[in-house]
Amino acid sequence: MIVQMKKNVTKEELEKLQSYLKEKGLGIKDASSAEIVLFGILGDTKSLDPDQIKVFAGVENVTRISSPYKLASKAFRQEPTVITLKNGVKIGSDEFVVMAGPCSVESEEQLTIIAEAVKAAGSKILRGGVFKPRTSPYAFQGLGIEGLKMMRKVADKLDMAIVTELMGTEHLEEFVKYTDIIQIGARNMQNFDLLKAIGKYNVPVLLKRGLSNTIEEWLMSAEYIMASGNEQVILCERGIRTFEKYTRNTLDISAVLAVRELSHLPVIVDPSHAAGKWEMIESLSLASLAVGADGIIVEVHHDPERAFSDGPQSLKPKQFSAMMDKLEKLSTVLEKKIVR
Amino acid sequence: MIVQMKKNVTKEELEKLQSYLKEKGLGIKDASSAEIVLFGILGDTKSLDPDQIKVFAGVENVTRISSPYKLASKAFRQEPTVITLKNGVKIGSDEFVVMAGPCSVESEEQLTIIAEAVKAAGSKILRGGVFKPRTSPYAFQGLGIEGLKMMRKVADKLDMAIVTELMGTEHLEEFVKYTDIIQIGARNMQNFDLLKAIGKYNVPVLLKRGLSNTIEEWLMSAEYIMASGNEQVILCERGIRTFEKYTRNTLDISAVLAVRELSHLPVIVDPSHAAGKWEMIESLSLASLAVGADGIIVEVHHDPERAFSDGPQSLKPKQFSAMMDKLEKLSTVLEKKIVR
Amino acid sequence: MIVQMKKNVTKEELEKLQSYLKEKGLGIKDASSAEIVLFGILGDTKSLDPDQIKVFAGVENVTRISSPYKLASKAFRQEPTVITLKNGVKIGSDEFVVMAGPCSVESEEQLTIIAEAVKAAGSKILRGGVFKPRTSPYAFQGLGIEGLKMMRKVADKLDMAIVTELMGTEHLEEFVKYTDIIQIGARNMQNFDLLKAIGKYNVPVLLKRGLSNTIEEWLMSAEYIMASGNEQVILCERGIRTFEKYTRNTLDISAVLAVRELSHLPVIVDPSHAAGKWEMIESLSLASLAVGADGIIVEVHHDPERAFSDGPQSLKPKQFSAMMDKLEKLSTVLEKKIVR
Amino acid sequence: MIVQMKKNVTKEELEKLQSYLKEKGLGIKDASSAEIVLFGILGDTKSLDPDQIKVFAGVENVTRISSPYKLASKAFRQEPTVITLKNGVKIGSDEFVVMAGPCSVESEEQLTIIAEAVKAAGSKILRGGVFKPRTSPYAFQGLGIEGLKMMRKVADKLDMAIVTELMGTEHLEEFVKYTDIIQIGARNMQNFDLLKAIGKYNVPVLLKRGLSNTIEEWLMSAEYIMASGNEQVILCERGIRTFEKYTRNTLDISAVLAVRELSHLPVIVDPSHAAGKWEMIESLSLASLAVGADGIIVEVHHDPERAFSDGPQSLKPKQFSAMMDKLEKLSTVLEKKIVR
Repeated sequence: MIVQMKKNVTKEELEKLQSYLKEKGLGIKDASSAEIVLFGILGDTKSLDPDQIKVFAGVENVTRISSPYKLASKAFRQEPTVITLKNGVKIGSDEFVVMAGPCSVESEEQLTIIAEAVKAAGSKILRGGVFKPRTSPYAFQGLGIEGLKMMRKVADKLDMAIVTELMGTEHLEEFVKYTDIIQIGARNMQNFDLLKAIGKYNVPVLLKRGLSNTIEEWLMSAEYIMASGNEQVILCERGIRTFEKYTRNTLDISAVLAVRELSHLPVIVDPSHAAGKWEMIESLSLASLAVGADGIIVEVHHDPERAFSDGPQSLKPKQFSAMMDKLEKLSTVLEKKIVR
Repeated sequence: MIVQMKKNVTKEELEKLQSYLKEKGLGIKDASSAEIVLFGILGDTKSLDPDQIKVFAGVENVTRISSPYKLASKAFRQEPTVITLKNGVKIGSDEFVVMAGPCSVESEEQLTIIAEAVKAAGSKILRGGVFKPRTSPYAFQGLGIEGLKMMRKVADKLDMAIVTELMGTEHLEEFVKYTDIIQIGARNMQNFDLLKAIGKYNVPVLLKRGLSNTIEEWLMSAEYIMASGNEQVILCERGIRTFEKYTRNTLDISAVLAVRELSHLPVIVDPSHAAGKWEMIESLSLASLAVGADGIIVEVHHDPERAFSDGPQSLKPKQFSAMMDKLEKLSTVLEKKIVR
Repeated sequence: MIVQMKKNVTKEELEKLQSYLKEKGLGIKDASSAEIVLFGILGDTKSLDPDQIKVFAGVENVTRISSPYKLASKAFRQEPTVITLKNGVKIGSDEFVVMAGPCSVESEEQLTIIAEAVKAAGSKILRGGVFKPRTSPYAFQGLGIEGLKMMRKVADKLDMAIVTELMGTEHLEEFVKYTDIIQIGARNMQNFDLLKAIGKYNVPVLLKRGLSNTIEEWLMSAEYIMASGNEQVILCERGIRTFEKYTRNTLDISAVLAVRELSHLPVIVDPSHAAGKWEMIESLSLASLAVGADGIIVEVHHDPERAFSDGPQSLKPKQFSAMMDKLEKLSTVLEKKIVR
Repeated sequence: MIVQMKKNVTKEELEKLQSYLKEKGLGIKDASSAEIVLFGILGDTKSLDPDQIKVFAGVENVTRISSPYKLASKAFRQEPTVITLKNGVKIGSDEFVVMAGPCSVESEEQLTIIAEAVKAAGSKILRGGVFKPRTSPYAFQGLGIEGLKMMRKVADKLDMAIVTELMGTEHLEEFVKYTDIIQIGARNMQNFDLLKAIGKYNVPVLLKRGLSNTIEEWLMSAEYIMASGNEQVILCERGIRTFEKYTRNTLDISAVLAVRELSHLPVIVDPSHAAGKWEMIESLSLASLAVGADGIIVEVHHDPERAFSDGPQSLKPKQFSAMMDKLEKLSTVLEKKIVR
């Protein structure tokens, strides 16, 4: 961390701040010139808040020069993290992973129809919501634990893994028991109690980026899970909130590249929630593959008009299957491959 | 809700959608002309999702014409909701309420010093965090339930009410027992499990606006609490996330007026988190009073340099007291009054 | 346009508004029910401002049901617009067009080196700035008209077309004379005087999307040019301003799909300005091709360290050539082809 | 400027960059420690672009430690700039200045009615648009120079100053002749040609903040005008573009305080364009006075239903007069006074 003092800083002010830092076991490296009073802070500044330094009288500016996350960073691990599921799928490998299924689990019949369709098209991971974070208290809230057991049953028949969203700590143990990947939704990306709780289990976590969270905050949330002991984190870009309202959110496709630069964790894209329009899913999925993502998660429904949620952004099985064909074709000239 | 169909919509498409709506007990009012095929949906459309209608073939556009929240709306209650605390303070009345205290409760000594100072300056509600939502897992996470009991003890001595943030359902009963107002933080505004849980208790709730949540979503979160049975909701504007980084967030002062227009619930402003700079707090507090807010919540610390969190945005007791003088003076020519 | 009146609207208020509309030659189609007072406005509402209707007493809400742009819309022309340059390049065809060159034209020598390199790699359109919109008045402002003539000379030798930014009307005629495509920069997207002026010439225009402009506003700016008589508009998505600061801007890749849905005009992507980091250009270009854009415009410099502007986002000739190879390979399995 | 090098930087890389800087006449101050390679750049770094330094191999990060604007900064001038108009009004003084009038000048009759009303209520500066930047080419574009002459005539009769928007350089001389303050609109805040042109005249300029421009960019645009010789710049905060759509824009009231901290230039608020709703104008004006702005600019129309533009955000004369009463009352307990 570099601290720039105001031009008119007094000797007392400078000493007060430097004493405070020394008390914390940190070192000081002066870098002042005729024009400016400046010093670096030496040692482990991970738990030091730059904003807190600014409170001291005479401070002009404080600049962090190392990332506030460690375990999630490339400095900690150079080679990419690969997460292997029980059914053998490897996320973060040279396979482009496609997770697919309905927004909400509605019934065993509905889930079976969709699961069979996406499996037939080549998906090995079934998505589906059983606890639904809905903006309105009057909207369908999900089938709960019964839905979760239903997912497990249907997925087992098809040798599929499952990914589903956990909204609170109450059902954590059941989720660990029944799911392969626990999803933390965008609205809970900074639900720190939930992150800490999930960090105590050795279970793959799909961590969605919050609607208005920076890439750094997203990696800090991964750090919460990892610092609690669980290093199996998969990041998921799902669109951010901007002034543009034509799409539901704005897919930040560059975030995939940013994560690649900053972290060793796998990163996938959710084009369904990003766009909110099924017409855009195929093209955005192709772009996600081309940009180098480790996979996608997409919503599929055999009867979108009667879906309990997210109908407008769901592909029909035929559309999904056609998309898989195109992804496979595209992947032939790229590093990540579609394996069906 | 008004549904506009595409120009080339077929009779079958139109009938399919209208049958679906009739099945749900809704009525249809045709409004087509030579140029356009259009109809209104009659009946209780509260649980109908406009996006879901768009899934039907032939639909061009769907427009909601009534608000998706009911209990939080002015249509439900015309007169302002006034929330009375045990120590007699009335939020939403003609008193401009000032909640003040440290960001984090650090020790009984620290809390006592600050509480006595803000009480002396005229505040009757003590703020302070005991569970802290921190971006970094390596930062101070709060004193927990011990801190809560400490707050109660200190507040009782001074006949102050307390407001503090609850981060998860685990400690809800203890919060109901020890606090006067339970705060739901910005990052948890759409933690729907928490909203539903808190809705089952008859306790005042301070609901902060999420960093990137619209006013409508904010009122929908209030609706979650109210629909569960608890109508004592106080809204708190605390700055939204924008492209501008000079301030920590961008205070959306117009949101106070929007809430006044749309809802009967009281609304206060948190200038500390909005600006993130103590130098701006006084002026933003004066603006909040002038614009018609029901109060403010501000951070005060006797030794900001050594505060465990949010030092840069904390006022010192003397600054707070000077600000109270100015607020009092300003309030003499306004409707809302400072009562010290 | 659909007008919803307040529940308590008076007969007089309703009549006042409807008379106003009839005076303007518009028709009224009542669509009221027991629950709501509602009517549609019939006729050409293109120049009617929905906000203006809201001024009338008793109006609750006004909804536009047709797009405010006409000439730029698919309703006006179904088949894609293809723009043919003098050197034969067709923008909007099945060729994926790559425009490349330095951010700023610095000297004939510099431009020649770069132009020869991008030509050799397969680019047929040379980009380069001669009037530079710089945030700081102390930064390099461009070589001006001399630079423009230099571009023409260098491009002619290589049979390349040129694209360069025009900042004001003063030099419009010279631009029409010397350039093949006139670029309107993001900061001038709503410089309506400039749009109208350029609309009077029959010259291809590259219209960049403004930093914080919606897709609708972007198409309205295209409409300005087209309504003045010039229909040769190429749209260019170059990143929008959001809260995320890791990249210079946030590339809104979905905007390419939105333009495809709404308009017949060709649309290209500028990954250089979107990301601001040369490391991301290749991947974002591949994504742009995969998503279905008509081309890209990228910055190339042989000595980025000494570039007068935008060094950090410039590819070196070797990197550009490698990228062209990858684009060509990818295009073999897509509809749009790289033609070198 | 502080430059942090990568851990694995080579001696050659370091020397290459430092030679480049020395060539430019800048000095180097090493500040490296065992953990980090770091140096400061000494001398006039005003025209040095931090991004350009990042292009050099081995650079990790570059931090600017002085503001990129000079003339607009407090470092250049400590005392507030006061701008005196011909009719004696002093902007930036202890008078809270109220500019008022119609959005568009529509006719001499309309303008006279409104000008007389706002003058009677206490305004001394008449606003009105004669060249209108409209999103749609089909909307009313203003009366042009005839409207300008009309404004002058009406204002002279009432001893009022006038402020009106200039959209391009074509009519600059006529504007200098006929107006007291030339407004640069939000969409032209970075029309650098226009800024440079206006900088050559000694005329007060009202520089609106762009829809998505940072405070720093806004001050850089002021710097453009000042660096060309004209130091009479008044800044105007008019709302920024965010995800929230309830208001037309989001009034960034903290920006007033930021400008106070960073600059000596006067700053006013435009609540009409910020909110886009006349119901909010009064409260936002009171807040602007309370926060310490130097004035406001508001839209007034005697017949908003038939206004050619911006009807929804226009106050009627009676409402304006009532607001002036409240502002005057509020100003009695504040430093800035309403002088009627």
